[in-house]
Parts: sequence; structure tokens; C-alpha cells
Amino acid sequence: MSPPALPLEPGSTIGILGGGQLGRMLALAAARLGFDVVVLEQKADSPAGRAACRLIVADYGDEAALAQLAGLTNLVTYEFENVPSASVAWLAAHGVEVAPGSRALAVAQDRFEEKTFLNANGAPTVAFAKADTAQEAADAVAQIGAPALMKTRREGYDGKGQRWVEHAAGAVSAFEALGGVPVIVEAAASFVRELSVIAARGRDGATAIYPLAENHHENGILRRSIAPAHADAALNDQAERIAARVLAGLDYVGVIGIELFEMERGQLLVNEIAPRVHNTGHWTEDGCEVDQFEQHIRAVAGWPLGPTRAIARVEMVNLLGEEAEAWAKFAAEPETRLHLYGKRGSRPGRKMGHINRVRPL
Amino acid sequence: MSPPALPLEPGSTIGILGGGQLGRMLALAAARLGFDVVVLEQKADSPAGRAACRLIVADYGDEAALAQLAGLTNLVTYEFENVPSASVAWLAAHGVEVAPGSRALAVAQDRFEEKTFLNANGAPTVAFAKADTAQEAADAVAQIGAPALMKTRREGYDGKGQRWVEHAAGAVSAFEALGGVPVIVEAAASFVRELSVIAARGRDGATAIYPLAENHHENGILRRSIAPAHADAALNDQAERIAARVLAGLDYVGVIGIELFEMERGQLLVNEIAPRVHNTGHWTEDGCEVDQFEQHIRAVAGWPLGPTRAIARVEMVNLLGEEAEAWAKFAAEPETRLHLYGKRGSRPGRKMGHINRVRPL
Repeated sequence: MSPPALPLEPGSTIGILGGGQLGRMLALAAARLGFDVVVLEQKADSPAGRAACRLIVADYGDEAALAQLAGLTNLVTYEFENVPSASVAWLAAHGVEVAPGSRALAVAQDRFEEKTFLNANGAPTVAFAKADTAQEAADAVAQIGAPALMKTRREGYDGKGQRWVEHAAGAVSAFEALGGVPVIVEAAASFVRELSVIAARGRDGATAIYPLAENHHENGILRRSIAPAHADAALNDQAERIAARVLAGLDYVGVIGIELFEMERGQLLVNEIAPRVHNTGHWTEDGCEVDQFEQHIRAVAGWPLGPTRAIARVEMVNLLGEEAEAWAKFAAEPETRLHLYGKRGSRPGRKMGHINRVRPL
Repeated sequence: MSPPALPLEPGSTIGILGGGQLGRMLALAAARLGFDVVVLEQKADSPAGRAACRLIVADYGDEAALAQLAGLTNLVTYEFENVPSASVAWLAAHGVEVAPGSRALAVAQDRFEEKTFLNANGAPTVAFAKADTAQEAADAVAQIGAPALMKTRREGYDGKGQRWVEHAAGAVSAFEALGGVPVIVEAAASFVRELSVIAARGRDGATAIYPLAENHHENGILRRSIAPAHADAALNDQAERIAARVLAGLDYVGVIGIELFEMERGQLLVNEIAPRVHNTGHWTEDGCEVDQFEQHIRAVAGWPLGPTRAIARVEMVNLLGEEAEAWAKFAAEPETRLHLYGKRGSRPGRKMGHINRVRPL
């Protein structure tokens, strides 16, 4: 195939790498705009696979599967940032446009590259240092100061692949506990709040930025978001400036999630970026005219971006594990919108769905 | 299978008879609530088939296909009122619950039964008479008075299967032009506006009624709806009373569309009822917290009904035939939400999508 003619016409097929809930909600948004969706996912039974027009079950690196995908569509996006770069390269070499592009993936897949990129683009972060060996890890903690957070440079989500180093003496054991792989050591952020901004950039370079969300994590997993977060104009301006720099710096196409720390004097630091739709943006489904899922589809399809202002105040609560069993209670609450992912089998901490509790602005 | 345990748990499968746009939007709403959807549809390629988890391609009366459906789900609904009653009976005999039920289908499939039911349940209509022969047709027009509208008792939609009889002398030729099948002759309604009310009834008998929509037809096809319609309390009360009577009279489960004529002195007459989600209810997708599609899934699944109040004012415009080719223009309008059905090939008058132009109440 040759690269897609943009804007992509309704009736065309969009490929999604990944079959989880983000892929499912992307697929539903794409269908509403008249697109067909083909999902490539490793598991035969998946939330997105069951909401898509076509499903290819294979490893993301399987060339036969990629060829099948390339035969069905010339525009592919993804729902998670650990897509193999070789797969993206293979698709590009076969005329398939992958958005967001390989630059965003490369930066987001490596926490050291990510923070280096952010600082180089005027988006401040905590102090950090990389370490490839136990000795370098000890040096890095000494340089950054304990307590510090040690994370594997690659992989890891929802608090996995990271470890607090409370005292300098613990650096080596933390490094070993993380598998002896390359790590990044980050200074502890004495933040007052965790915030995030969901932003989008179209193929024409236009940007659209949603209001800030205030996020609460438990055990490294997002528990709830409140949006729009209470924030003064200066804080909003700062967030928008950061989002604009990140989007431009990555020459980004699509929706991105940017997690922020609000520090004591109101300064924002970037915690991390995710080159995809984001859990802290689920509030937009019931709080905005165009939610993050439709916005992402619009962006990658070369459509104009939609409005991002809030039309309601939303408390988004993740339903983890057996919490989703209370669906009947939530369904009976007039102010509560229920979003369930159709996952088979719950285990503690697994994201089974979310609710948006909606009230007027 | 035995009848479904209600309320139906998320993760269960819901069957939909019919693969058109209404089925597609039902499928997307069901997926959002965590359900899987299996569609039974005659055509291999259809809007709902491409948004469902499973697709069975067969005639609605095909027993092997119905058996396959019954093996996948014990709860089935439909997107159009001309489902064969024999199919519903077959499914019921095999432990499959079909909602809305056979009473609603029987009434809605025959325009004479429909108006007879309505009048018997305190829902007024224009004067009408049935005719099975040319002579009876002439008598009926003489009784009702010309001009009158002659319609086949069964089948027909979007203005098909009906004919104006301008003078009594034209009765026989109209009857013959309609194929010599049983007809109903209806008095001309000198209405001032066409309105409709979308209403829902749950398995517990609870009802939820959306605000009135004002509808404009062209060539028998819905062109646009404006909702909530400007209406005083008396008119709203009247509509709600009619909806409540229709729902109770049919022991209804699901969403129903009730088309109304507003007469000169503010009286409402029922034009027709459709035992399904309805084109004049598409405004609820962007004007209400719970739209008609989710509401229908909630009702048939035995879930509590959701709120029906309007949170915005919406102008819904159907995109007919090549009008949908202007999708890029609509996508660029900030106040416009675009809903496309993914239909292959447009022909004049074919419903390809709709837009909701949204503004504050």
C-alpha cells in the first residue's frame, strides 16, 4: 500500500495495535465516525478485539501479522507505548503510516531519553541520572540524594519496575532487585498535587489542550481524577505551555497524556508522558464535547481537532478488580456514567472499568 | 438455554436482529456498558455487523441461524419493527427472551392494529378505517373524507407504501397502486407541527421519558429534529401521558419512538409508534446524559433506566445520500458532533449519517 490519503475518509479502516480498554474505547470512537477498525493483539480474547470489525491475533513483532494488517489498512495507531520499534519500522517500510510516530515512541519507551527530551524542550522535571551498573546506580543515588526513586529505563507501568531508595546505602540492592538492567534515578518530588494534561496535535500542527485533571494514585495505580482541576490562570498557562512544547518537540500527531507534579510554589514538573490516550483523560468522555478517544482518531486521521473545553465537572473513579461487581449500584446513580471494558476475570488492581460522576460546572 | 438472569451482567452477550445504523449505535452503547454483541443480519456487509463482536449472516427466519443466535445469547433485541413474529416465537420457545415483546411487534407491524390499540388506550389518533378490497377502499375514503392518506397495513417506512387520495374518486386506483393489499385509510391531519417523544420502560415497569423533539420531514424522510422542542407544560404533560399509556398498554420493555401531530388547539394525536430506538431520538446522543441507545440496552438488560433530561439544545440533521460527503466541513464545526454509519455506497435519500449541532440550553 501507499501512505494514506489524508484526511482519511469515513469508511476507511484504521488499525490499532493493542487490545486493551484503551483500544476498545478508541475502536468505539472510530466506529462513531464511520471508520472500520482492525485490532492486532496477542490474546485471542480482548476488550478491543471484541469491539472491532476485524481482529488479528499475533505478537506485535510477527511479520506475517503485520503484513496482514498492512493489507487491511495504511493507517495504524496504538494504545500502549511499548510497541516494538522494529514493528513500526516494518510497517513504515510497507507504506503504512503509524501515528504517533517513531520519535514519540522512542522518547516514551526510555525514561532517561524522556526526561532528557523534556528538559531540552523547556519542560522541567525532577533531577535525574542514569545508571547501567550497580556502581553507577550507587553514584547516581549519591548525586541525586536519597530518598530517590529508581526505575528501569524501559517497560513498567502502574508502579511496576520501580523502587524507592530510602538511603544511599540501598542503591545497589535496589538496582539488583530491578533486575540489574539500565535504570534512571530520580529525585523525590515533594509535590502538593498530581495533575495531568491531555493534549492533541493534528497533522497540520494545530493543537488542542484539555483542562487540567487532578489525580490520586494508590499503590502506583490511578484511583481517581477530578476535572477540571481547581487551578488559577497561571497554573493553566504553565500546563498549556508545557503541553505545547512537548507536542511540538515530538512533532506529535495524536493525543498525549502528560503527568505533572504541582510543586509548593505552583511550579509544574513533568512526571512522565504517554504517547497515547490516557487513563487520566477518561473524564473527557462525559465532561467534554469531543472526548480524548474521538480526538485521537481525528488527529491521526488528519481531521480537524475538536473542542476541548469542559462542559461538566467530572470525578472519574477507576473500578479495580472486584469493585466492578458493584456495577448495579453505579448504574442506579443518576449522576454516574458507567464504562465497562468487558474483561474476562478480575484480579486485584486490574482495571475493569471506570465511572464518571458528572455534575454541572 | 434458559431465560436470562436479570439484570443481565456485564460481560454477557446481547443479540441484535438487524444490521443497520440503529443496530450499530445500539452495539456501540452495549459495548460501552461491557456487553458483547452478536448481530443477525441478512447482508454480509452492514453497519452493525462491522461494529459487533460476532455476526451471523442469514435471513431473520432461518432456523439454523436462530439456533446459532440462541447458542450465543439468551437476550435478543431488534432495530426494526418488521422482525418476523415466527422468529420471535421460535426464539422464545428456545429459551431466548426477545425484548420489546411480541405484543409490541404485533401492534407496530399493522397500522390498523396500531391505531386501534392507541385509541383503546387513550392515545388519540386521526380518524381511520381499514379496507381489504377496492370496494372497501372506496367506502373507507367516502367515510373518512378526501383528501385522505392510504397506507398498506404492513411494511413500508420513510414514506414508502403510502399514497395521498385527493378525491374520493381516486380511492380505487390508489388501492391498486399500493398493490391491492390490505390498507388503512387515514384522515388528513391538519397539524401545525410534527413532534415526537422517545420513551423507555424497564422490566420493573419504571418509565423514563425524554423531552419532546420537533421534527421536519421532506419527501417522507426525516430531515431534521430540534430538541427539546419549544413546548409549554400542558403540551409536555400531554406527551408524557400518551407515552405512559402506550408503554403500559404494550407492557413494553425498551425504548419506543412515538410520532405525534400537534393540532391547532394544542391537542396531540399519535401518528405512529416504532418499537425501537428512533431517528428522532438521535439528538439524545449529544443532548442527554444517557442517550436512547444506552437507555434501550439498560431497559432490555433489566438495568435501572438512566436520566432523560436535556443538558443541551440540539439540532439533529440527517445526512442523506451524498450530503455525507461534506463530512470534512461538519468535522470542522466546533458545535457539530458527527455520527457516520460506515455504509458502503450512497444513493439519494439513503441515511448515511447525522449531525448534532449542540448549543447550551
